[in-house]
Amino acid sequence: MERIIGLINAPFTPFTNEGKVNTEPIPAYADMLVRNGLKGVFINGSSGEGYLLTEEERMMLAEAWMKAAPSGFKVIVHVGSTCVAASKRLAAHAQTIGAWGIGAMATPFPKIGRIEELVKYCEEIASGAPDLPFYYYHIPAFNGAYLSMLDFLKAVDGHIPNFAGIKYTFESLYEYNRCRRYANGKFDMLHGQDETILPCLAMGGAQGGIGGTTNYNGRNLCGIIEAWKAGDLDRARELQEFSQDVIDVICHYRGNIVGGKRIMKLIGLDLGPNRTPFQNMTDEEEACMKKELEAINFFERCNK
Amino acid sequence: MERIIGLINAPFTPFTNEGKVNTEPIPAYADMLVRNGLKGVFINGSSGEGYLLTEEERMMLAEAWMKAAPSGFKVIVHVGSTCVAASKRLAAHAQTIGAWGIGAMATPFPKIGRIEELVKYCEEIASGAPDLPFYYYHIPAFNGAYLSMLDFLKAVDGHIPNFAGIKYTFESLYEYNRCRRYANGKFDMLHGQDETILPCLAMGGAQGGIGGTTNYNGRNLCGIIEAWKAGDLDRARELQEFSQDVIDVICHYRGNIVGGKRIMKLIGLDLGPNRTPFQNMTDEEEACMKKELEAINFFERCNK
Amino acid sequence: MERIIGLINAPFTPFTNEGKVNTEPIPAYADMLVRNGLKGVFINGSSGEGYLLTEEERMMLAEAWMKAAPSGFKVIVHVGSTCVAASKRLAAHAQTIGAWGIGAMATPFPKIGRIEELVKYCEEIASGAPDLPFYYYHIPAFNGAYLSMLDFLKAVDGHIPNFAGIKYTFESLYEYNRCRRYANGKFDMLHGQDETILPCLAMGGAQGGIGGTTNYNGRNLCGIIEAWKAGDLDRARELQEFSQDVIDVICHYRGNIVGGKRIMKLIGLDLGPNRTPFQNMTDEEEACMKKELEAINFFERCNK
Amino acid sequence: MERIIGLINAPFTPFTNEGKVNTEPIPAYADMLVRNGLKGVFINGSSGEGYLLTEEERMMLAEAWMKAAPSGFKVIVHVGSTCVAASKRLAAHAQTIGAWGIGAMATPFPKIGRIEELVKYCEEIASGAPDLPFYYYHIPAFNGAYLSMLDFLKAVDGHIPNFAGIKYTFESLYEYNRCRRYANGKFDMLHGQDETILPCLAMGGAQGGIGGTTNYNGRNLCGIIEAWKAGDLDRARELQEFSQDVIDVICHYRGNIVGGKRIMKLIGLDLGPNRTPFQNMTDEEEACMKKELEAINFFERCNK
Repeated sequence: MERIIGLINAPFTPFTNEGKVNTEPIPAYADMLVRNGLKGVFINGSSGEGYLLTEEERMMLAEAWMKAAPSGFKVIVHVGSTCVAASKRLAAHAQTIGAWGIGAMATPFPKIGRIEELVKYCEEIASGAPDLPFYYYHIPAFNGAYLSMLDFLKAVDGHIPNFAGIKYTFESLYEYNRCRRYANGKFDMLHGQDETILPCLAMGGAQGGIGGTTNYNGRNLCGIIEAWKAGDLDRARELQEFSQDVIDVICHYRGNIVGGKRIMKLIGLDLGPNRTPFQNMTDEEEACMKKELEAINFFERCNK
Repeated sequence: MERIIGLINAPFTPFTNEGKVNTEPIPAYADMLVRNGLKGVFINGSSGEGYLLTEEERMMLAEAWMKAAPSGFKVIVHVGSTCVAASKRLAAHAQTIGAWGIGAMATPFPKIGRIEELVKYCEEIASGAPDLPFYYYHIPAFNGAYLSMLDFLKAVDGHIPNFAGIKYTFESLYEYNRCRRYANGKFDMLHGQDETILPCLAMGGAQGGIGGTTNYNGRNLCGIIEAWKAGDLDRARELQEFSQDVIDVICHYRGNIVGGKRIMKLIGLDLGPNRTPFQNMTDEEEACMKKELEAINFFERCNK
Repeated sequence: MERIIGLINAPFTPFTNEGKVNTEPIPAYADMLVRNGLKGVFINGSSGEGYLLTEEERMMLAEAWMKAAPSGFKVIVHVGSTCVAASKRLAAHAQTIGAWGIGAMATPFPKIGRIEELVKYCEEIASGAPDLPFYYYHIPAFNGAYLSMLDFLKAVDGHIPNFAGIKYTFESLYEYNRCRRYANGKFDMLHGQDETILPCLAMGGAQGGIGGTTNYNGRNLCGIIEAWKAGDLDRARELQEFSQDVIDVICHYRGNIVGGKRIMKLIGLDLGPNRTPFQNMTDEEEACMKKELEAINFFERCNK
Repeated sequence: MERIIGLINAPFTPFTNEGKVNTEPIPAYADMLVRNGLKGVFINGSSGEGYLLTEEERMMLAEAWMKAAPSGFKVIVHVGSTCVAASKRLAAHAQTIGAWGIGAMATPFPKIGRIEELVKYCEEIASGAPDLPFYYYHIPAFNGAYLSMLDFLKAVDGHIPNFAGIKYTFESLYEYNRCRRYANGKFDMLHGQDETILPCLAMGGAQGGIGGTTNYNGRNLCGIIEAWKAGDLDRARELQEFSQDVIDVICHYRGNIVGGKRIMKLIGLDLGPNRTPFQNMTDEEEACMKKELEAINFFERCNK
């Protein structure tokens, strides 16, 4: 199977002020991502408020991204939901419209507590798009699925034909590396925390990753990988440190889904509000965040 | 607003062996519940695998229960989901078909960590069925929404016009009672743990409740309330102890959703398998569970 | 073995303003407890900041309480610590000075995650005072030892000769009752949450208990049991509700160890500050707490 | 203040078979550590079962290590306990006997939930040894003190005169790096997870660290830093991967305190059993562990 090389962006979902899905900004959004070095998108995931969308909205978004994506720009569709039948339908739809791949995080309800449950869940969904690579999206802080990913790889190996790898959004670089080395690197371990790309590269990982702050800071995050490859450790460090500073700011404003989405407006690509139950930032909060970003010269260095 | 008096049952969703929703057993199911003293149903909730159903399936089930319910038998429709728009549609549908009320637990994704988020979430959903009482279903073990229910009552009071009360499925009888006494008992606090009906009655609560083990043990659980009212404490204790013994058995078999649903087959109302990611019991496990139930004379005392 | 009937108080440890242990108020403290219906004390536990005392201080306190206790007033010494050898020494000391019994909670370090570890821990400590009844103090919110108490009883039964029962400070009245009924009531299940004495009585439990808010609200908490025995449910409810209101207040002021200890000063028995790392209440906070207590007429109804 | 360069080992505490502290192996232990590249010891910490020792035992061990330590070999004494007065005494003792520094983790009881509590706790202990550098040992998985270390640094800065830095035993390399960069690197951030030395080096950290698996795998762990400095990334990776494989083995045998301590016996330095409540490995488990270690050629590469 083809490996993902470089960074994929997890886009936010554009809404109108009334809260309807708004596909209008997507072509400009895709252009901006390409311009800043991103290799594709992982849509309808956590940054994209995928769980807060209806099935029809998710399909509509997938189609809009397929239309907007230039040749070679990968569209991976997150199809996870609490309802396997719906997820399978979304997987089939992704295959039909020619998406590059699909992914799913563990359902948050019921909370998954056993490897076998997770395997069954992934297997049924993956079977909906048998021709596409399937990525498991590991983000236990969001769904409580604190399972050993090494045991999971052992369990899916040879069992789910189109299983491609894991989007690993968890702090343990130890476990990440153990998974990366499993069966001589059989599976594609996508790094999923923008704050630790450089340390992960040092271990041999992070050749491919999926980012959330890449939406507005992709050029610097892509720059870490380039600098590392070029042997310029000082530059890689500086870029990683800057990226950590950016993350530090959004952590003051309810994280990437809320704070990060509002940054898009500040860099000229207004994507509208968040859906309930997210609490949208107030104008006052936006002004404060802007100041914090200015203090680190963000607007001179961000995606353009 | 009318108070719920007595026990409401949270039914399992019948599936065919192929995993399709099967409305065929519902009339017999409703009859059995009435016969055993239940006052209504809370459908499409956690026992009903509501989150694992599509929107269409949830509506189909609501219609089937409305058709099967005899006069005066309350049908409350759980409409919670990760997508507020879908929940609001389900709420509107419930009102259209004449359901008695609606309910929603907190979305498990994103995990709700603030009272204001929960209020917003409930408010939007409740507005879909303005003529029906709305119950918040508090079950933090399932969705991580460990919030103060007293603070929540204060926040919704005067804010959500059709807010009726809470289905309280958590261990703190202290908090339960604080909520019950809030504003001179303004809200309807439905007791939601079958293992502690008697202690709750002693405090003055549990006049109304929603049970999960009432599916097969309803006559004994209803019996606790009757015995208490009749001043027969010994009988109330014996029935509560028996009910705890039953719960002890299902805890050995992955709880009510899996183990309890299989008991229905053992008492003659086969409701089919569970949906992914639940792991269905094996025949061997079923045989073991049957023995444990026989050891406490369950089959002589259960719903019939 | 003798059962504990009625309520035992878990006293605070008196300190001088300089933070030294101060045994001077203990005789008056004991008198006050007797006067308000308490049947004994469980010293050096969580309310007594036992873990924050040196071994010598713990012994000194035990001796002071033994000296102050009138005939028939039970002195139970909590001897748990992170160091089993020290705990065993404290147990032997308790036996030597004629204490009525001993108790120990699970060590918080290392966090106990297996029944066998807990059994071994209790066994070694209990062996230090072979002639005294040993109570396990279950308070998992404080030490993370979330283990099944029913499985624990099965494991200690026949294994620790002087094992007497459990001080059960956890919300599950279901598990409490299962333990109470184990082996026809073989072990003494002491109720350990003042907020739920009445509901527990209804189930047949709470004949004996150990309280923390009994320090200042003991007469009302003892009154719940009396009213229940006298068949006066209305009075039992009123007293339980009042006691919940009191607990509600201390929850606003960092709980019983900090807020509750300061109430002692307000009712005329100043026990000094808390030890580091507890943050003592400011005078301003004290004034606010006093107002909240006045609002529920606490000072007319409290221990005197 | 002097920075720690290189790796410090957290030794196990030698016990006789009867469970008494055994200082006899300490000189040979110290020699072995020096021979394998370690720069000092952090004694009486979690690997050393410090919380399970009496105050006298802790002092005796500190003296034995001081006696055994060759010139320039740093002895850092962990003095944390649940009793601040005892910790302060241990701190003073460490200073008296000429230890290089002291450290303390947050008390596990009461669980520390606020920065101010932690600052107070550290301040009082650090004041016991005003001439020695004080390190806070951050290991929230063991004591539940999940606090922001960046906020903690801000709070201690200028407040605790001998505060030197943090032994950081947590997965977030993001937070580690934020702390490392605080106030232009004002504080000494000791890396505390042997599984991620290489990634941390890449970010600019891990110049100094405190290891637990360094007891038996120190030469390879020290080798990572050497290889990195020498620009030999391939060798650094191989050594880090080997070290992860070793950690993987001990994770199958209750971790470093139990499994790791038994490895010492396998490499010729028997340190005796663990204290209650730890469950010592059986001979059978030891044989299994040995096989797993042989399978990765551990005994050819380990400390000698």
